[in-house]
Amino acid sequence: MKEALEVNVARRWLLAASAGGAAAGLGGFSSPSLAQARPLPPVASFKDASRVIVHSASGIETQRSAFGTSGITDTDILFLRNNIAAPDAAIVANRDAWQVQIDGVTQPRTLTLADLKRIGLSSVAMVLQCSGNGRGFFAHKASGSQWKVGAAGNTLWSGVPVRDVVAALGGVREGMRYMTSTGGETFPPGIDPQKVMVERSVPWIAMEEALLAWELNGEPVPLAHGGPLRLIVPGYYGVNNVKYVKRVAFTVDETSATIQKSGYRVRDIGRKGDPTQPTMWHMNLKSFVTGPAGGETLRAGPVQVHGVAFTGGSPIKAVEVSVDGGKSWQAATLFGPHLGRYAWRQFVAQVTLGAGQHLITSRAIAVDGTVQPELRVENERAYAHNGWRDHAVAVTVA
Amino acid sequence: MKEALEVNVARRWLLAASAGGAAAGLGGFSSPSLAQARPLPPVASFKDASRVIVHSASGIETQRSAFGTSGITDTDILFLRNNIAAPDAAIVANRDAWQVQIDGVTQPRTLTLADLKRIGLSSVAMVLQCSGNGRGFFAHKASGSQWKVGAAGNTLWSGVPVRDVVAALGGVREGMRYMTSTGGETFPPGIDPQKVMVERSVPWIAMEEALLAWELNGEPVPLAHGGPLRLIVPGYYGVNNVKYVKRVAFTVDETSATIQKSGYRVRDIGRKGDPTQPTMWHMNLKSFVTGPAGGETLRAGPVQVHGVAFTGGSPIKAVEVSVDGGKSWQAATLFGPHLGRYAWRQFVAQVTLGAGQHLITSRAIAVDGTVQPELRVENERAYAHNGWRDHAVAVTVA
Repeated sequence: MKEALEVNVARRWLLAASAGGAAAGLGGFSSPSLAQARPLPPVASFKDASRVIVHSASGIETQRSAFGTSGITDTDILFLRNNIAAPDAAIVANRDAWQVQIDGVTQPRTLTLADLKRIGLSSVAMVLQCSGNGRGFFAHKASGSQWKVGAAGNTLWSGVPVRDVVAALGGVREGMRYMTSTGGETFPPGIDPQKVMVERSVPWIAMEEALLAWELNGEPVPLAHGGPLRLIVPGYYGVNNVKYVKRVAFTVDETSATIQKSGYRVRDIGRKGDPTQPTMWHMNLKSFVTGPAGGETLRAGPVQVHGVAFTGGSPIKAVEVSVDGGKSWQAATLFGPHLGRYAWRQFVAQVTLGAGQHLITSRAIAVDGTVQPELRVENERAYAHNGWRDHAVAVTVA
Repeated sequence: MKEALEVNVARRWLLAASAGGAAAGLGGFSSPSLAQARPLPPVASFKDASRVIVHSASGIETQRSAFGTSGITDTDILFLRNNIAAPDAAIVANRDAWQVQIDGVTQPRTLTLADLKRIGLSSVAMVLQCSGNGRGFFAHKASGSQWKVGAAGNTLWSGVPVRDVVAALGGVREGMRYMTSTGGETFPPGIDPQKVMVERSVPWIAMEEALLAWELNGEPVPLAHGGPLRLIVPGYYGVNNVKYVKRVAFTVDETSATIQKSGYRVRDIGRKGDPTQPTMWHMNLKSFVTGPAGGETLRAGPVQVHGVAFTGGSPIKAVEVSVDGGKSWQAATLFGPHLGRYAWRQFVAQVTLGAGQHLITSRAIAVDGTVQPELRVENERAYAHNGWRDHAVAVTVA
């Protein structure tokens, strides 16, 4: 249902767009040459079209070469993925009036954004990553945007800690096991809300580091990215970071919304989603090279291979780089500010390349000894790809 | 000379500008109402006009209310201060071809930006601050832009560590005491280069943390901010971070350029600059409140007072906030990612405000026990203002 709706939204937009046109709409999402020709959707008109890949009206990816080496992903290149269309821009006309209902606490209450700003303030650097990032490397043509590496970014959010809000309302009620949050999207009439609403449950303890955030990278959260208010759950895949959040409830059970019950479930190819399968919560250990970005012709000699490493689990301990497609590895150096365990770390390794073709990739190692795997885990929706082999880039040395 | 040239550049630009007009040009630099009406100069057309104050063609300040709470200052609101006009934009058309001469090392050499990229890579978060930030609080009408708090920003730079370049060229020659760097600006014919060139010397040991940087906040350094290549000297005032750097030389003596010899020297009001006076190197301990930004009318009750604290010396240990103009103080909490000792730290304190007027300010305390002072040190050019009294903001609670 979710994917069908996305297709419909995207098709309408493509048919209406002046460039790209109907042919692209019929062809679907993922051809790079078509994708790069697509215009930015209106809600994301502020993006830098020269440094992103537009997959659809609700799917925009950062180009691998655009990440740079400063550590933070600018909002104007940050990936965009909306499960359903953003609400009307009227909701960001008076941001402080936005309301969020807090339930499952001793004193349930509806608070405005202005109220939240009086309760507390904090900030976190964290990787925001779509569950399907890397889908474009799978062979079975899973539905959804065919992301390569760029449905991820390292972002700064600020707002009020959820734990401060909860404390102000007397604490979480006894027996609650989940933090269940609801997005403020609206749906066309005749659609069953359960099937399309963005309502996600995460373990309640995630509230300890979660924010109700009104600022992204120094500016009020843009509508496209969930403004005026977005729930931020560091270390969790993007879908759990509910946009336009209108309710945060501590609940005994997971929500029965389709997006939780059968959506975002990891299962074998060909199987339907169900609640017994793992859901997309914590991000796994991952790294990829951002420079060279692939396809370049380089001079022989020293090259600084750089990239990013991140995880929603045990912190990054080290990164290794290979220039021979994984036959041999050398240690990389982590560099730049350490923005905290939910942010990505930048790495660099000096390699020396002779004439010929080189396949360059990286693998991250966590403090608990986990090593980023070589291969993807095949799964129906092509989620959670962290295999280093597919993420390699090819360069030619003249 | 420097100031005179700035006035001339600014006057020409103001006369040519379609908005603002000749009247503003005659009036000089600092009237806030006129300043806000001035258009952005062409070299800084990418700035967000709604969140900066344009003092002149070479002086743009971030509005206090624009800093936000995410920790990094976006390039589109970052202050701008050019001693002389930027070189022609042709120099950023082929960035990798930019050349920098390295002298005072065992093997002096001219390197291109492409060469530098092969030598090493690192990144630093640091406060970039104009020596004259806070000049607008002085009473004696010192020449130069009348900055309040916004000639400072917290920025991410990446490039090659100067120490890596030096190591590649055999190390610093024996007996060198300074790192002397020269900007690539060009001057109108008939002007003595010594009098206008941007050439600054800093203690040679500063090279240990300095970068030759080609990236600012994730993008190639804009021309206005010194692209294609800028020397970054963390902890030092802005002027030492030489733009369009074309030469880095390790030298026995400080440069005899006017900007070093008599410019940027701290002296009593009415005295001329000379080399016996302190030069603007390390930044002093400073903090200021960024929210409330001043002038607001607030509801009675709790308010989250937030701001930033930074230093070029002993690291920040704590920050205190006062809501009664400095009669009493309470501890603030440092929050958000710790970006390293040269970055600013964000602080927040929850205060409770009753009806009436409140004068809100902050003071930083360093690890070595230094406390940000109450008062400015009067000096001819109005440099280095870190007094907490002048930096206070006034709010009214209805």
